[in-house]
Amino acid sequence: MQINVIGIGAGNPQHLTLEAIAALQESDAVVALDKGENKADLLGARQYIIATHAPGIPLITVSDPPRDRDPADYRAEVRRWHQARAQLLLEALPDVEQVAFLVWGDPALYDSTLRIIERMRGLGLDCSVRVIPGITAVHALTAAHGILLNRIGEDIRITTGRALLDGPTTNAVVMLDGGAAWLDVPDAQIWWGAYLGTELQVLRSGTVAEIGAGLAEEKAALREQHGWIMDIYLLRR
Amino acid sequence: MQINVIGIGAGNPQHLTLEAIAALQESDAVVALDKGENKADLLGARQYIIATHAPGIPLITVSDPPRDRDPADYRAEVRRWHQARAQLLLEALPDVEQVAFLVWGDPALYDSTLRIIERMRGLGLDCSVRVIPGITAVHALTAAHGILLNRIGEDIRITTGRALLDGPTTNAVVMLDGGAAWLDVPDAQIWWGAYLGTELQVLRSGTVAEIGAGLAEEKAALREQHGWIMDIYLLRR
Repeated sequence: MQINVIGIGAGNPQHLTLEAIAALQESDAVVALDKGENKADLLGARQYIIATHAPGIPLITVSDPPRDRDPADYRAEVRRWHQARAQLLLEALPDVEQVAFLVWGDPALYDSTLRIIERMRGLGLDCSVRVIPGITAVHALTAAHGILLNRIGEDIRITTGRALLDGPTTNAVVMLDGGAAWLDVPDAQIWWGAYLGTELQVLRSGTVAEIGAGLAEEKAALREQHGWIMDIYLLRR
Repeated sequence: MQINVIGIGAGNPQHLTLEAIAALQESDAVVALDKGENKADLLGARQYIIATHAPGIPLITVSDPPRDRDPADYRAEVRRWHQARAQLLLEALPDVEQVAFLVWGDPALYDSTLRIIERMRGLGLDCSVRVIPGITAVHALTAAHGILLNRIGEDIRITTGRALLDGPTTNAVVMLDGGAAWLDVPDAQIWWGAYLGTELQVLRSGTVAEIGAGLAEEKAALREQHGWIMDIYLLRR
């Protein structure tokens, strides 16, 4: 079996590349993890992509196993959860030549699909893997704000809300922040975006000292309103 | 005037997104900097993209002004060079409603187009700017190797050969390395790629201690053979 791990971009179906569309059309089935009704919008976007570019290809949805979001040992819990997902996916995998996994953003950046496929191999799956790069939320953010990631000659750091203070906070792109970690860097400039590329898109920018607290409230309100939120931001001092 | 700054991906014309194609087709002209015959392959790829997706749209090519590649003050020389480019481009800009700049990779990552447009505004240009995100060489590299950028919970750093040793060398993606800066990190694992997404693509991986010196020789030989090289690599310790 060949598994096509296809980056589909960050929310906007127009982020799809010609290479992604071709790989989708070559696939015999699409497998997706259903992350629960809170993220139904995300599953709907995948259904839209299939209906538009590869109508008739079956979408096999596997319910995501439960996950402890505040474990004592973060990495161990992530590994346990990946193993549980691998087991479920392996059982659901159809007997076809090519299966596509549609991945938000790009498969190399804070996505677990490639790790889960490694675990499926560990459980006995014989497959080759082809990866199709995708537009990441990082670049959806900078494009929406019309900005560069860095000033001339400077580094860029991509990190999580959890690890933000463990490294430099200039040109730090923060993903997977369940809260408002920007509040820890009051002297930074922030460019923030949520639901990027979708009809719900919200953009904010300013100094953390000025807009940070209000943004934390707005993020909480948006999550409440839509039932879920995906946000990302760039900090620069 | 509206300027569409369009990320066209990292070498492979199939990296083009649906959004990029639509923005190209809405444009009345494409402006490109011709970086000299050494990079003729790159200009050719842009011509191919226009001929395929927007035949008939004129391509206006502006010769790149000369640049000191080893200046005493790197940032000052880059700024001087950007100003010279802005001046040349402003003079060449056609009098139309929408102009497209086709940018390798993504406009936010180690690309000067947005900075040059700012300088053109400083020189008197009245324009709005729309940015279309593109597939970066970073993700072309990880997709070609079928790898992730980081291990669970780890940061990612994007840097240049020049600055590599000024920060962490785990999950360090190095771009714009004119030499072989990886040799300074002998205990790292390296995933290297050149001419990504093109017919010339070369991939190498291993420990720097084992393959680093040979790779430096190979890079020099490839540059000699093709007259130019664009490479990128990921280091991890």
